[in-house]
Amino acid sequence: MLHDPNHLYIFDTTLRDGEQVPGCQLTTSEKIEIGIELERLGVDIVEAGFPVSSPGDFQSVVELSKNLNDVIICALTRANENDIKVAAESLKFAKRGRIHTGIGSSDMHIKYKFNSTREEILERAVAAVKYAKSFVEDVEFYAEDAGRADNEYLAKMIEAVISAGATVVNIPDTNGYCLPEQYADKIRFLKENVKNIDNAIISVHCHNDMGLATANSIAGVKAGARQVECTINGIGERAGNTSLEEVAMILQVHHNSFDGLKTNINSKLFTAISRQVSMMMDMPVQPNKAIVGKNAFAHSSGIHQDGFLKHRENYEIIKPEDVGLDEAGIILTARSGRHAIKYHLQRLGYNLERSDLDSLYTKFLDLADGKKEITDQDLINLAQNTTIKV
Amino acid sequence: MLHDPNHLYIFDTTLRDGEQVPGCQLTTSEKIEIGIELERLGVDIVEAGFPVSSPGDFQSVVELSKNLNDVIICALTRANENDIKVAAESLKFAKRGRIHTGIGSSDMHIKYKFNSTREEILERAVAAVKYAKSFVEDVEFYAEDAGRADNEYLAKMIEAVISAGATVVNIPDTNGYCLPEQYADKIRFLKENVKNIDNAIISVHCHNDMGLATANSIAGVKAGARQVECTINGIGERAGNTSLEEVAMILQVHHNSFDGLKTNINSKLFTAISRQVSMMMDMPVQPNKAIVGKNAFAHSSGIHQDGFLKHRENYEIIKPEDVGLDEAGIILTARSGRHAIKYHLQRLGYNLERSDLDSLYTKFLDLADGKKEITDQDLINLAQNTTIKV
Repeated sequence: MLHDPNHLYIFDTTLRDGEQVPGCQLTTSEKIEIGIELERLGVDIVEAGFPVSSPGDFQSVVELSKNLNDVIICALTRANENDIKVAAESLKFAKRGRIHTGIGSSDMHIKYKFNSTREEILERAVAAVKYAKSFVEDVEFYAEDAGRADNEYLAKMIEAVISAGATVVNIPDTNGYCLPEQYADKIRFLKENVKNIDNAIISVHCHNDMGLATANSIAGVKAGARQVECTINGIGERAGNTSLEEVAMILQVHHNSFDGLKTNINSKLFTAISRQVSMMMDMPVQPNKAIVGKNAFAHSSGIHQDGFLKHRENYEIIKPEDVGLDEAGIILTARSGRHAIKYHLQRLGYNLERSDLDSLYTKFLDLADGKKEITDQDLINLAQNTTIKV
Repeated sequence: MLHDPNHLYIFDTTLRDGEQVPGCQLTTSEKIEIGIELERLGVDIVEAGFPVSSPGDFQSVVELSKNLNDVIICALTRANENDIKVAAESLKFAKRGRIHTGIGSSDMHIKYKFNSTREEILERAVAAVKYAKSFVEDVEFYAEDAGRADNEYLAKMIEAVISAGATVVNIPDTNGYCLPEQYADKIRFLKENVKNIDNAIISVHCHNDMGLATANSIAGVKAGARQVECTINGIGERAGNTSLEEVAMILQVHHNSFDGLKTNINSKLFTAISRQVSMMMDMPVQPNKAIVGKNAFAHSSGIHQDGFLKHRENYEIIKPEDVGLDEAGIILTARSGRHAIKYHLQRLGYNLERSDLDSLYTKFLDLADGKKEITDQDLINLAQNTTIKV
């Protein structure tokens, strides 16, 4: 695996952490369709499934391995030999295959999920990485619930798995628990206290239970992580994972704040892939979703529309065409101001005098108070009834 | 207005910044219904509308003023006398009324929106606050596009409007531009450089264009802000505003990180008010929305379900009942493990031996690979066909 220090690896888990959501299950051929689009989008790693979990999932990893050529194909396992053997088997056609194995790292997981001890879990972690390494060169280790793990113990675990051959170490905030500075402190602690940390890439894997997945991920990147695990539309279990499109656009808009870090993502494909994933998984994207929501670039209030029409950058930090949308829509409502009405009337071929506009505007407000959205046809009717010359 | 230093004021703008979204317009009686629920929820301030914008909006502020008793009613204006006079008129029945006036503070807004100079804009800001102050005691000033404003100029503007009588100073990241640390630095700069800053409450008003509204708001609170402007479900123009429910739950879960700051929010009402707002505004909430999405507390994958069933806190940092949901749903898919199946069979009255469970599990996986969700009835059919004793 390349270790370009200026590259931020994008690890997409739409087909694994996203797909395991109630109602989101895909057929193998649907997964291949999305996988091909993820490859076009420019992600570095596609997590293709959890092969031991079902025959269908196994088959999907096999077929994605056959059909994708430019990305690393990753398969998830728990820290046991059977999971790892099955994952290795599912990756046999991958041009570059990665096994993603791991185990709980918080005392809560160690005690209540594994009924075990820190020492025993550490041994199992190392054994799993060594076993995975017997099949593939590229082994990623996840320290489940790292967000709530004791940092000293976590550092010990990470050092041991890197010594055992892990090429990537994933520090998941499994429950979406951390605040951004807590998560960043954890990554920084590992950078500073794990002797062999430079032999692996640190990966962030955040969940959105309190709406902080994106913020936590970028805080982790600022603290030294170089891989972000994320999904299209932020889908995933419970409140979902980090949104790929949000992280990529933050890096693009704020490139100066990220020391020249780059991804290979072509943001112009976001709108299309967002709709494809939403449709195939039957997972609606809310209109106010950042970057890919249907309203994400729509300006409707009078104050904003006026400023927007005067100078686009007043209210637009991302150009809609940069994410594959043709133009920002303006929708008229009772909150729309005179400038917006005038602009749309002009667009429809009506050039109004000031007094005519005032008269039309009063009628517009009456209509708009009773109606949620004013369409072009409503505007044409108003214009014609106001005896305005076309 | 009370200035309890341990209280974080929740300023809800669902009925103003939320309502101005395409398709979200409400009738006055619908606004009153939501207003009453916001009051029950425990918000401190309800922004009721932008009265000069339309007769309907004016009337809504009048009626909300009459119908709500325990909250401050706030009306939005631009920095001109007519807007302010109309707002004051709309607030005449409010037990406690606030005028929210303001003007652009970034050079981009000053130049391209107002075609003006920093000096002139400063004068207009001061004049607007003084004029508003002639009608009401409680005047909030917004420095539009503060997120991109020069901090020195912004500090000068804030100092001047506080001297003119502003009780609250709102520092909006109008375009959702800032990274959390940039926004926090801005708030901190004002705390440190505005001489009279302790005479006013600093308010944060963030937009979610890059998915950072919640993170920016809490970063602002940590830096000294004591009012958060937000909406139910994070609705609002473009990618929306800060989600009220996310901020409130972060404060609840991480109370130790916020120096004992408290809100009056009763989080048990979140699920109900979220659904009410979504329905009335016809604004769907995506299943993976934090706190209020339909999947926010649903656990489906085998690894997670197993841990979840063993010890609830393994995967749950917020109890569903704390946000008004009765119990976390478990939905079965091809990614569900044996423990989850066994639990649900037991719930349905089937107690299985290990070998019977293995046999049923194989059939379950075949079925689940072809079907998105396995229902209770599917499980009952499987159990009966596996010749298991009930």
